[in-house]
Amino acid sequence: MAAAPDLDLRHIREAHERIRPFVHRTPVMTSASLDALTGAKLYFKCENLQKAGAFKARGAHNAVFALTDEEARRGVVTHSSGNHGAAVALAARSRGIAAFVVMPSTAAQVKRRAVERYGARVTLCEPTQESRESTAERITAETGAHFVHPYNDLRVIAGQGTSALELIEEVPDLDVILCPVGGGGHLSGVAVAAKGVSRHIRVIGAEPAQADDASRSFRAGRIVAAGNPKTIADGLRSSLGELTFALIRAHVDDITIASEAAIVAAMRLVWEIMKIVIEPSAAVPVAVLLDRALPVSGQRVGVILSGGNVDLDRLPF
Amino acid sequence: MAAAPDLDLRHIREAHERIRPFVHRTPVMTSASLDALTGAKLYFKCENLQKAGAFKARGAHNAVFALTDEEARRGVVTHSSGNHGAAVALAARSRGIAAFVVMPSTAAQVKRRAVERYGARVTLCEPTQESRESTAERITAETGAHFVHPYNDLRVIAGQGTSALELIEEVPDLDVILCPVGGGGHLSGVAVAAKGVSRHIRVIGAEPAQADDASRSFRAGRIVAAGNPKTIADGLRSSLGELTFALIRAHVDDITIASEAAIVAAMRLVWEIMKIVIEPSAAVPVAVLLDRALPVSGQRVGVILSGGNVDLDRLPF
Repeated sequence: MAAAPDLDLRHIREAHERIRPFVHRTPVMTSASLDALTGAKLYFKCENLQKAGAFKARGAHNAVFALTDEEARRGVVTHSSGNHGAAVALAARSRGIAAFVVMPSTAAQVKRRAVERYGARVTLCEPTQESRESTAERITAETGAHFVHPYNDLRVIAGQGTSALELIEEVPDLDVILCPVGGGGHLSGVAVAAKGVSRHIRVIGAEPAQADDASRSFRAGRIVAAGNPKTIADGLRSSLGELTFALIRAHVDDITIASEAAIVAAMRLVWEIMKIVIEPSAAVPVAVLLDRALPVSGQRVGVILSGGNVDLDRLPF
Repeated sequence: MAAAPDLDLRHIREAHERIRPFVHRTPVMTSASLDALTGAKLYFKCENLQKAGAFKARGAHNAVFALTDEEARRGVVTHSSGNHGAAVALAARSRGIAAFVVMPSTAAQVKRRAVERYGARVTLCEPTQESRESTAERITAETGAHFVHPYNDLRVIAGQGTSALELIEEVPDLDVILCPVGGGGHLSGVAVAAKGVSRHIRVIGAEPAQADDASRSFRAGRIVAAGNPKTIADGLRSSLGELTFALIRAHVDDITIASEAAIVAAMRLVWEIMKIVIEPSAAVPVAVLLDRALPVSGQRVGVILSGGNVDLDRLPF
């Protein structure tokens, strides 16, 4: 097994200094009702209230602002069906450079409008991983723009980990942190940050049962591809990358799964009880806790609510 | 014209001290996107994130905890179709006394369940003001419980005003505060608090055009009854009371109105952009701002988002 990539708490702290002027320090919320329903003491890190509506703003800003002036000069390019594209567009605007975002033709109109609102140029592609990548490569070749991967990039991962850094600063004695896992950029960054602060904080990934490739990869010791998973948690359909997988193996304690029904029920409950809008991906760790699929009774649990971008015309409940 | 009731900043501060252990100090949120859409700098006081999902927890706790032990001994009774009932039930539980809540038989199931979850005893009545009042009177006679009016009560009004006190503590140099108005308990408390701190803060009520009795009362110089208004803003259907009307005349600068369509659009926009759940009543001041119905360009505007209790099965958009 290869050594874990060179990423530690120092990089997360550097990322935090770098992005602080451009992103929100999101609030940590609590809920007596959800504590009662789960039997734990929950601390919700509200990345749904982050700029552009998701934690992705953290990694995108770190990646974009870590570029040298020479690297940044011709702009940045990425591919994304949603939150990462908007985050890169916003970060590029913050730096005053161009952004090119490749989106599948099937992406929700509301997500495309968000990317365009931040001033990025959108190029549509076929809804396959191959088409995304080849289109992004073509744009890179044509424009000389710098490619920013949605998750398999150490600067992106370091940026995402700042969400956990802030959570731990506010609630120092957490027993566990739960974080959704798709491509693994957020979970691996959170794990590096949390374990860097204290080996005693357990870090657990939460994944839809219908897209459990990260869980299977974690157990198999090699990356198992996601295929084309059918889950409502549209932010969690990607496969792990080489970098995120290595970091997850090195630093994450376990990955748990939740059913589609549990995800929808958890999403609705958070809206109803906490009065905040979270997207299905963000509901996955809450679903794990409501199902009591994890033994955390009486413990202090950090829950990362990863995003709040939903199409209000197509609610699942 | 009678002198305004004896209520000033001192009472609001006393109420704040009294209720502080039992209610949330709610966050003040900002939104660059909504600033751009309205042309003002907005500060949202998020009472949708208050306990029991609305500012009503403030007034109810102040009223319940201001009672002497003798007055409180046999519990409290109120009538309400929603938020005030849940707030009184919660406050009574906080004090460890009984609560009796009269609700119209047409009240939403979700609201009734909320009241019962806090341990109150619910009595259903006909959906008329007369039936509410006579049923509450009967229960008062039978039980000896103390009646807490939803708004026409100086202790309730003082409690509601603490929302503005906190907002002004956090954002001292506001030009205007906008607050929804139904029975007027919140608006009159907010006005007493704001004008007590500074005569220079303008205080403006916001009301549905379909239930514009407060606006008409304000202009006519006498209470005009609401009748049976058809508005989606279900928290704003009541008529003003003698006390709230007198305080509004003395301290409020103006009352503006918004159409039903504008209210629904504003509600949806806040969900989409701010990722928080607000109820239609809370969207009314936002609708006024989005319509540019008030000249606040470039000004610092406090907006009280009064509550977040909605039936997710019956969304208006």
